[in-house]
Amino acid sequence: MDVRLTLDEVYQLTTETLTALGASDDNAAAVADVITAAERDDCKSHGLFRLPGYSIALKNGRIDGKSIPEINDLAPAVVQIDAKGGFAPLALKVGRAPLAEKARSQGIAAMPVINSHHFAALWFEVEALAADGLVAFAFVNSRSFVAPAGGSKPLFGTNPMSFGWPRKGKPPLVFDQASSASARGEIMIHKRDGKSIPEGWAVDADGNPTTDPEAGLAGAQLPFGGYKGSAIALMVELMAAGLPRNHLAFEAAADDPGDGGPSKGGELLMAMDPSRFVGDGDADASLDHVEPLFERILGQGGTRLPSDRRYEARKRTPAEGIKIPQKLHDDILAMQDSA
Amino acid sequence: MDVRLTLDEVYQLTTETLTALGASDDNAAAVADVITAAERDDCKSHGLFRLPGYSIALKNGRIDGKSIPEINDLAPAVVQIDAKGGFAPLALKVGRAPLAEKARSQGIAAMPVINSHHFAALWFEVEALAADGLVAFAFVNSRSFVAPAGGSKPLFGTNPMSFGWPRKGKPPLVFDQASSASARGEIMIHKRDGKSIPEGWAVDADGNPTTDPEAGLAGAQLPFGGYKGSAIALMVELMAAGLPRNHLAFEAAADDPGDGGPSKGGELLMAMDPSRFVGDGDADASLDHVEPLFERILGQGGTRLPSDRRYEARKRTPAEGIKIPQKLHDDILAMQDSA
Repeated sequence: MDVRLTLDEVYQLTTETLTALGASDDNAAAVADVITAAERDDCKSHGLFRLPGYSIALKNGRIDGKSIPEINDLAPAVVQIDAKGGFAPLALKVGRAPLAEKARSQGIAAMPVINSHHFAALWFEVEALAADGLVAFAFVNSRSFVAPAGGSKPLFGTNPMSFGWPRKGKPPLVFDQASSASARGEIMIHKRDGKSIPEGWAVDADGNPTTDPEAGLAGAQLPFGGYKGSAIALMVELMAAGLPRNHLAFEAAADDPGDGGPSKGGELLMAMDPSRFVGDGDADASLDHVEPLFERILGQGGTRLPSDRRYEARKRTPAEGIKIPQKLHDDILAMQDSA
Repeated sequence: MDVRLTLDEVYQLTTETLTALGASDDNAAAVADVITAAERDDCKSHGLFRLPGYSIALKNGRIDGKSIPEINDLAPAVVQIDAKGGFAPLALKVGRAPLAEKARSQGIAAMPVINSHHFAALWFEVEALAADGLVAFAFVNSRSFVAPAGGSKPLFGTNPMSFGWPRKGKPPLVFDQASSASARGEIMIHKRDGKSIPEGWAVDADGNPTTDPEAGLAGAQLPFGGYKGSAIALMVELMAAGLPRNHLAFEAAADDPGDGGPSKGGELLMAMDPSRFVGDGDADASLDHVEPLFERILGQGGTRLPSDRRYEARKRTPAEGIKIPQKLHDDILAMQDSA
């Protein structure tokens, strides 16, 4: 059985739950922005599905719900955000303007985030930067869930990366994809719904291929695309945890209390101003130049641009609202009552 | 039958051939550096195998072998190299120091390359930057060979990207991988040997999956890892041809005379100084921090680090020399005589 909610109700349910558990208004609003956007875009695995995890980590005192992120200017083109042990969304929100300013003044800029707890969709930040006319990347690692190509034990996080490209008069082109064959949340949803997972998503604890979501969660997820996807997972680990010197996925795993909340870790964003990459400074000309590529992708039929499905959902949900399972709604209300 | 050459002979054969066909000493030396390094590392597909293509394009006057690359300072963190219609290797060589200088002074920097003709391995530049203590990326597109996920017609280039990470007292970790499921040459070799190609490498001209190499060559190659690899191919296209405003793969295809030489296009490099990404400025501490990750990858067994096979070859070839087919050697000498 499902509960239907408007997007305003999604936002309100999130802020009420997090503030009841001690989060500051700023932290609650930043998390609610991301969860509401995920529900709006039908990205269920980053929507209200995550709220019990955020809530438990707050309740346990593991995450500082009153954190005030600190902005550290490390270099002309590098701004570090210290999340001070809080949720990632507020740190990212605080860092967005300084990152964009540096990208415009220097041409390219980077934003390492430290001491944060990440759980959210990456496309949210990348889309915001790209909507502001910047090309953007985000890299995040997580706890060890994914075996390197040829191996059988969890080592890498699911390690998503996101890329955004601005378009004139249209929402940006954005992708946000795990380096694992599937998002961990997708396997969790298959388990919840009693469904098998496709081959190639995971191996069991003995390293054997499995279609049982529970066995896969107990074993190791696999990278997408074999050794090439494994190299991408390694790159994401080095960008998110190496350059900013955050927890590697295996350190985050060792540090994790298993409460279902986000693990401690970091993130790295990069932003580029297209006007600073060409001699004539004409960003519009560069953006116009690549539009025929998008037309040719769609012209083949059977194809889509990476963000199209999200943008389609975004047209429907503000009027139709969204649905979540009754049990998830009950769990969230129980978290509020437990405060 | 094979011809055995020392690495010095590889270098000399390359410079003599290119200068005989009108290349300047600087251009010939830059190409010879890359070809010799590829032979040294047993990367045959970027070694002397490419010299006839470079030579033909010089002979046809399509590439300016006397080009003098121009350095354009576009922003505090962006340096553009205009290859002036010449080969990519000299442009990249000329740009390396200014890119590294900007990465150190700004924290992160980018180098768009325009008006170049690319044929070389990407790891060569990325490894040089990483050996100099910088984290580095390179993106290059090529002519249309690869269909977007769900599509059936060539659109993207094979679109390699390369990533390098510096290591203390060890050669850098570097990967350099195409966004296609296989190298085009691999499909040609399957055709020659009368073998089927694995599923997932190509579709036929009607867009149907095929294991027939001839049908695959007439159709389109597929990206690695399904829609995720397709997104990577698109990202590479936008980084290499979008930001610097170079030929997209379908424009390079339309512009290509089919002479077997490198197509006109561009490239984008990025470099980051790890000391500028942490508050204490201690790059060594960041590099030390990630070494246990590499140990754990190798500790699983059945695994390897992306650059290990090249570094193994590098131990052998300075003493043993390398081998190329007699026919390739004859073809190269014939190119010299035709000058």
